[in-house]
Amino acid sequence: MLQELFTPSVQHSLDLAGIFVFAISGALLAVRKNFDVFGIAVLAEVTALGGGLFRDLVIGIVPAAFTDLGYFLMPLVAAALIFFLHPQVERIQSGVNVFDAAGLGLFCVTGTTKAYEYGLSLTSSAVLGLATAVGGGVLRDVLANEVPSLLRWDRDLYAVPAIVGATMVVLCIRFDVLNAFTSGTAVITAFLLRLAAMRFNWRAPRAWNRRSSAAEEA
Amino acid sequence: MLQELFTPSVQHSLDLAGIFVFAISGALLAVRKNFDVFGIAVLAEVTALGGGLFRDLVIGIVPAAFTDLGYFLMPLVAAALIFFLHPQVERIQSGVNVFDAAGLGLFCVTGTTKAYEYGLSLTSSAVLGLATAVGGGVLRDVLANEVPSLLRWDRDLYAVPAIVGATMVVLCIRFDVLNAFTSGTAVITAFLLRLAAMRFNWRAPRAWNRRSSAAEEA
Amino acid sequence: MLQELFTPSVQHSLDLAGIFVFAISGALLAVRKNFDVFGIAVLAEVTALGGGLFRDLVIGIVPAAFTDLGYFLMPLVAAALIFFLHPQVERIQSGVNVFDAAGLGLFCVTGTTKAYEYGLSLTSSAVLGLATAVGGGVLRDVLANEVPSLLRWDRDLYAVPAIVGATMVVLCIRFDVLNAFTSGTAVITAFLLRLAAMRFNWRAPRAWNRRSSAAEEA
Repeated sequence: MLQELFTPSVQHSLDLAGIFVFAISGALLAVRKNFDVFGIAVLAEVTALGGGLFRDLVIGIVPAAFTDLGYFLMPLVAAALIFFLHPQVERIQSGVNVFDAAGLGLFCVTGTTKAYEYGLSLTSSAVLGLATAVGGGVLRDVLANEVPSLLRWDRDLYAVPAIVGATMVVLCIRFDVLNAFTSGTAVITAFLLRLAAMRFNWRAPRAWNRRSSAAEEA
Repeated sequence: MLQELFTPSVQHSLDLAGIFVFAISGALLAVRKNFDVFGIAVLAEVTALGGGLFRDLVIGIVPAAFTDLGYFLMPLVAAALIFFLHPQVERIQSGVNVFDAAGLGLFCVTGTTKAYEYGLSLTSSAVLGLATAVGGGVLRDVLANEVPSLLRWDRDLYAVPAIVGATMVVLCIRFDVLNAFTSGTAVITAFLLRLAAMRFNWRAPRAWNRRSSAAEEA
Repeated sequence: MLQELFTPSVQHSLDLAGIFVFAISGALLAVRKNFDVFGIAVLAEVTALGGGLFRDLVIGIVPAAFTDLGYFLMPLVAAALIFFLHPQVERIQSGVNVFDAAGLGLFCVTGTTKAYEYGLSLTSSAVLGLATAVGGGVLRDVLANEVPSLLRWDRDLYAVPAIVGATMVVLCIRFDVLNAFTSGTAVITAFLLRLAAMRFNWRAPRAWNRRSSAAEEA
């Protein structure tokens, strides 16, 4: 069932990179919510590992977060950085958003690939890849007692880049052309789409009558 | 271990029906919370699949939501319906409550049955059936940053109908009379109990001293 | 893989004791939030079983909450006690905190031990033991729509005693001296540390510039 689509070290490095940047976003939210140092560490861990943990529970394996020490230590490094340096990091908020977009691109690709490796169908793999990419952020917002950014209409498009990235991966698998190059292309496409959504404030529509003054659209 | 208590197609149809009506309730809450189209889709998916996903993780199988495409597509259909038609659906809110009651009845029965098929004890099966029936709604409310209706004293009885339905199923299993007819009776009993709870505003008591002016009760 | 580190009955009794005291804390929060009797029962169950359920899902077994009837019934006993007696229990709030501290000590030790028995590494076992000890309380706070106490800077140290207890267990395993006596020592150490944190209001620091008037520290 397990077909190595990547060399393990490539997938591992991509995963660690995604974990790091998501941990940064969790730690920053914890600082803004005035949490203490353990709150910062916990929110960094949950944000970084939550999506992958859900993915691994679904496919029925012991979550990588509990088998690979690096997965656990990386968010602590991010939390320590934010603990000491967060004024500097907040000043480069746009930089943080760039890293977060990179994490989204990385996780939708590695999540989809891993789900397929463990026997899910192509569609289910893409769905689980999407859940991997957005799950940590949703958990982060729930623990911080906020409505998840993913759901709010007044945030820029977040799901669409991940959907596009996951779809590209399953198309590559379907046509048997998944390799380091095509995967990288999927990562970069999702990454750039997210950057563009933030740059141009792309938003998703709300339900019909909520945009009532613009009723001519209907 | 797996004894087919139903023909698979009957269980599958009951499941899909429950998924659809729960997805409607999730999508409607998303519209009220002013979420965008992705928020509507996500809340529909989570509400419809959350309970079953928890059940499948507990019994240790890959969740049906990720092996059966219909489970994933059904909430999207419900979300699309609500996206375009929600003023009409809200006007028939009582109709929605009827559907939600039907979902509660369906899920407590199919959840209990599936848990028993995978080897849980009778009591644990009933508990997991109850968790299947109410789990999606709890997740829906947590993601929408509200106190779960299940817990609030000012909402009509919700858990009791599901407890009754799940208990009927395990009694039928115990006395070896579980079949399409007795299962249907359990579904309909839970369904009618929930309708009656809403019609007559049945509420559960709060803890003793909260009803202080009625202190003679203590 | 399964090495019996304790006699099963000892681990079982410790677990049940921890479940009971955590259930008390969940039921008390439910009363304060004005939940009805089902809300009290649900919050007692979730607080008591949530951490262990997460642990068992991670190590890939059917959660003990669904295989052992006592695990399920114990929180109901606690919920019934609180339902009838909560004014008395609240008056002895400090007593409740003592029980909660005992639960923290018990769960960090049994969680770590069970994780190691099922094949996790020493570090991962300690992390999962910590998650077992604090997980139920986090779920309790999320369901009650509050920011988890674990994360807030204005609460006394909660994670540190559990970290110390879990670390003592893995050190004992590492040096092959884990037995009823050393385990008990770990439980009592975590317990006393938590009591001291409450007694002397030990708090964890927040991130650097939040303590701005003390900017000379930076």
